[in-house]
Amino acid sequence: MNTPSWPSLDLATLRADYAAGRRDPLGVIEQVIAATSDEDAHRAWISRVDPERLRAQARALMARDPATLPLWGVPFAVKDNIDVAGLPTTAGCPAYAYAPDAHAPVVQRLVDAGAIPVGKTNLDQFATGLNGTRSPHGACRNAFDPAYVSGGSSAGSAVSVALGQVSFSLGTDTAGSGRVPAAFNQLVGLKPTRGLLSTRGVVPACRTLDVVSIFALTAADAAAVLAVAQGFDAEDPCSRAALPHGHDVGADPRPRLGVPRGDQRVWTEAGCAASFDRAIEQARALGAELVELDFEPFYETARLLYEGPWVAERYGAIRDFIERQPEAVFPVTREITLGGKALLAADAYAAQIRLQALKRRCDVVWSQVDAVLTPTAPGHPTIAAMLAEPIVRNSELGTYTNFMNLLDCAAVALPSGWLAGDGSAPGRPFGITLFAPAHQDVPLLRLAARWQATLTGPAATLGATGHALPAAALAAPANQTPSGQVRVAVCGAHLSGQPLNPQLTSRGARLVAATHTAPVYRLYALPDGKRPGLQRVADGATPGGVAIEVEVWELPATAFGSFVAAIPAPLGIGRTLLADGSEVPGFICEASGLAGARDVSEFGGWRAWRASGMTV
Amino acid sequence: MNTPSWPSLDLATLRADYAAGRRDPLGVIEQVIAATSDEDAHRAWISRVDPERLRAQARALMARDPATLPLWGVPFAVKDNIDVAGLPTTAGCPAYAYAPDAHAPVVQRLVDAGAIPVGKTNLDQFATGLNGTRSPHGACRNAFDPAYVSGGSSAGSAVSVALGQVSFSLGTDTAGSGRVPAAFNQLVGLKPTRGLLSTRGVVPACRTLDVVSIFALTAADAAAVLAVAQGFDAEDPCSRAALPHGHDVGADPRPRLGVPRGDQRVWTEAGCAASFDRAIEQARALGAELVELDFEPFYETARLLYEGPWVAERYGAIRDFIERQPEAVFPVTREITLGGKALLAADAYAAQIRLQALKRRCDVVWSQVDAVLTPTAPGHPTIAAMLAEPIVRNSELGTYTNFMNLLDCAAVALPSGWLAGDGSAPGRPFGITLFAPAHQDVPLLRLAARWQATLTGPAATLGATGHALPAAALAAPANQTPSGQVRVAVCGAHLSGQPLNPQLTSRGARLVAATHTAPVYRLYALPDGKRPGLQRVADGATPGGVAIEVEVWELPATAFGSFVAAIPAPLGIGRTLLADGSEVPGFICEASGLAGARDVSEFGGWRAWRASGMTV
Repeated sequence: MNTPSWPSLDLATLRADYAAGRRDPLGVIEQVIAATSDEDAHRAWISRVDPERLRAQARALMARDPATLPLWGVPFAVKDNIDVAGLPTTAGCPAYAYAPDAHAPVVQRLVDAGAIPVGKTNLDQFATGLNGTRSPHGACRNAFDPAYVSGGSSAGSAVSVALGQVSFSLGTDTAGSGRVPAAFNQLVGLKPTRGLLSTRGVVPACRTLDVVSIFALTAADAAAVLAVAQGFDAEDPCSRAALPHGHDVGADPRPRLGVPRGDQRVWTEAGCAASFDRAIEQARALGAELVELDFEPFYETARLLYEGPWVAERYGAIRDFIERQPEAVFPVTREITLGGKALLAADAYAAQIRLQALKRRCDVVWSQVDAVLTPTAPGHPTIAAMLAEPIVRNSELGTYTNFMNLLDCAAVALPSGWLAGDGSAPGRPFGITLFAPAHQDVPLLRLAARWQATLTGPAATLGATGHALPAAALAAPANQTPSGQVRVAVCGAHLSGQPLNPQLTSRGARLVAATHTAPVYRLYALPDGKRPGLQRVADGATPGGVAIEVEVWELPATAFGSFVAAIPAPLGIGRTLLADGSEVPGFICEASGLAGARDVSEFGGWRAWRASGMTV
Repeated sequence: MNTPSWPSLDLATLRADYAAGRRDPLGVIEQVIAATSDEDAHRAWISRVDPERLRAQARALMARDPATLPLWGVPFAVKDNIDVAGLPTTAGCPAYAYAPDAHAPVVQRLVDAGAIPVGKTNLDQFATGLNGTRSPHGACRNAFDPAYVSGGSSAGSAVSVALGQVSFSLGTDTAGSGRVPAAFNQLVGLKPTRGLLSTRGVVPACRTLDVVSIFALTAADAAAVLAVAQGFDAEDPCSRAALPHGHDVGADPRPRLGVPRGDQRVWTEAGCAASFDRAIEQARALGAELVELDFEPFYETARLLYEGPWVAERYGAIRDFIERQPEAVFPVTREITLGGKALLAADAYAAQIRLQALKRRCDVVWSQVDAVLTPTAPGHPTIAAMLAEPIVRNSELGTYTNFMNLLDCAAVALPSGWLAGDGSAPGRPFGITLFAPAHQDVPLLRLAARWQATLTGPAATLGATGHALPAAALAAPANQTPSGQVRVAVCGAHLSGQPLNPQLTSRGARLVAATHTAPVYRLYALPDGKRPGLQRVADGATPGGVAIEVEVWELPATAFGSFVAAIPAPLGIGRTLLADGSEVPGFICEASGLAGARDVSEFGGWRAWRASGMTV
């Protein structure tokens, strides 16, 4: 753990300091220049923006209105396979380098929001690897213990954030490159839904699977960066528009979390199993209901990525270059990449079918759980161990990450406690991953923020900076993406246990609250005896209003339309005023339908009236 | 054109005859046995069910209740790459043959519905080809003129239906194999949405793209077969559940139909251009609005299938066999298939990205049109011409069909007039295709039925049987699949031209009817002056009801929920009784919201009240 020698660059602290005038962008940039101008013992950087240019950018920003720029004066690092204008893009291979004309769109979005890219970071060459040693710039070193791997391929992007040199960074993540380094450096590593962030201006690894990822010190920071970085790119064939995320697991007081069945957990390092057991206890303490899952189809999918034909995409991505200059490629990277040349198109299509079959098996879990909790990696090897068996050790690192993009999931890696050292070493962080189907990035980050807020000891510090988690980061980040959910207040046959309740549950509805209306309603039993009519009191037209028992349910808006369309007269869906003063869609009743109805308001609700045994 | 020597086997005629006792299944089976027991000059069949077994099946059916079996006593043919228990599956390659244990699930569904499989049909070997000549059983011959190709690869499946030997048949369609033979034999050829019909028990061609297709004499027949044949198959990784189809182009009085831009139409035979011009006129006569489309991205996608890496799937599907016994494969098929061996996985992934880019360009048309109308083939070659240049001539046949499965569209090929003969020959049919995005199979068939009903002359006969289209087939088939659409009656600010109308149009809503309510309502102008409240008259609680102007709009149920959830009090969505006595979801108003409102019923509607210039 480094002793903090400069103030934290996490967004909550930085923004508060900016707002209070305790720091300004130029001062922060001077801090970044100082922090990144040493001999780079961690081998985190490949190139850095010229200090004078950085100062000029900070000065230019200081003439702008911070209120209009969500990332005003926030320094960040960029993995060196993503274009930043003015710096070469090398993908960790000097002979491959080119000078991009422009920022990659995802970088441009951040710059447009006031963030300042300060340099390009070291990586497993061509993003092939999960360990960080496969670089001609030297093996990237773990931020906590330089004898251990940083994790990769987004090695320097993780280490630079963990060392407190930048506020956040961009990585890429095909098989786990944005998550394994987060685990090893005690960071939040968001692997967004495929296609949410443009991959234009990114050197492809497996282009059908690659995503740009985000490293941050807190889940709230990752959410703030995501909000700026994401956006549909019509010129990127892999870009996808964000969809509503549905049920918000991050706001659920009792999230259902899957975990790999006990006998199926895979470890390569002593101590990790116990750390994961503690993580499960921590999840329970958060209110989670834990569900053990058969993880075999996930492991099988993971193997499909590394043992199957997708490696051919890596070959295809640099085919011309590696055929021309094979000697320019890092030896282990060359061996792996040229292995992709022998793979047949026939095998690629067969693997596609195999994947479809596996995805169908894996997707079954989403009817049982809201998200899945796994270790991020089965163990943390030393650099020496990695170099001794570079392919086997690397494959092990992808045990819990390789399947994610194949199965079209969103995932967030986050700190979860501490692996004790061996006496001579100070110990290292242990990390877990939460994942869920595509488009649930923000709910996962909100759950991650709740998780991070419960951490204690060294795990409650930011990366390797030693700075404590700022209080402002403990609150769940705002949910800036539409859920696509709607709420509806029900007061009769749709209440829990009543005959029409399955019309809600079959549409994926969940009970949000059992409450009452504001005291401005009368409740009538309609002549059919089966349904109530809730009628609002207005200007003496009806007797004084009372509070009526209601339940508020939440369901996807896409399922609500068919629910509404099936409601027979005289009922319908209008707005219901609740006891807490809020208003939600809810049942209303046409006045004409009350002919012959009986005022049952005195019972306080439909259930009580029904229980009375009386009839209309 | 054959002179009909036996009664038509189309479903409308057959069912009517069954119901009236004019025919019975045993008699029909005898007719089928007689019709298929000749020397098979057309080379339509590879194997036939033993006559005694057929008679036994017919007798067994006659002991069942026809009302419980939608395809009771309906004989059908099966392409010989689909398993039928009791017959070998050869895929047109005797050395490849195997004896299946069971019917393919799609065949089983038809048998369970009372249909009788009578034999296996000739095909371009391994379903590789669009022409029907690539078979060791002999080139399949066109039903109208044996000098011409039948089309393929589902050659015998088309010819057997066109000759009136069976009521319908199953084919497969990867690149056009279910559509080109339909065009050349004056049939309806449905290429269903990928995954709707199980492909288990089918010899794969390109397994990621293959579909089982349906040949029928009428669009109504194809719809009836589809209703039985489709169904999710959990054991088929490519199976997909049917989704609601949305807007029903088959019921749209003014369907918007795209056509390839005039200068982009491709022809290989004189006369086809004029036939297509007549088809466009026929579409106009049906009420269609024609929109010329840039067809280049579709052609580019089509080329991607045949010139790109998908042929490797054909190699992969029979790799073990063709490596072991290359000499057993039909020469041109061997050449094509072994070409797939050289293709790299890297190329397959690159093509996937290329396809995604092309699909994005092609999908733009769905904001402009409801369906697209194209020729089915650019010309109809003779068998001699095909054999002279088997690969080039075959590629030409896929001009308008190859892109369909890559772009995930549903398509129906159907008759569209007649190509005049050359004096010595009697002439041949010309065919068009209607296509739309996945899951619109039934709307396309309903539009196809309207189309077929307008045909005249030889095109108005069934296949090559000479039988006239039965009157019962002229009505559009019932729509047995859910549209997922809902209707809503609006009476105020959501009317066309009113301020909130974009809340409907932005959700894909279309105006269905401008009409009135039943005369049981009063209309109030709410105090805000911007919205009306429609209130139903009940038992003297309000003055006598009047009819109020409303519009009925239709939109996807998936979009209706968010519409409803955004309606402010006191309005809501209940049910509106229309002038024609039907009831649809529509705006209602809480009684309490009428305080201070003005009764404007005398104006007959919101527009007239607003036009009056009066205020509340």
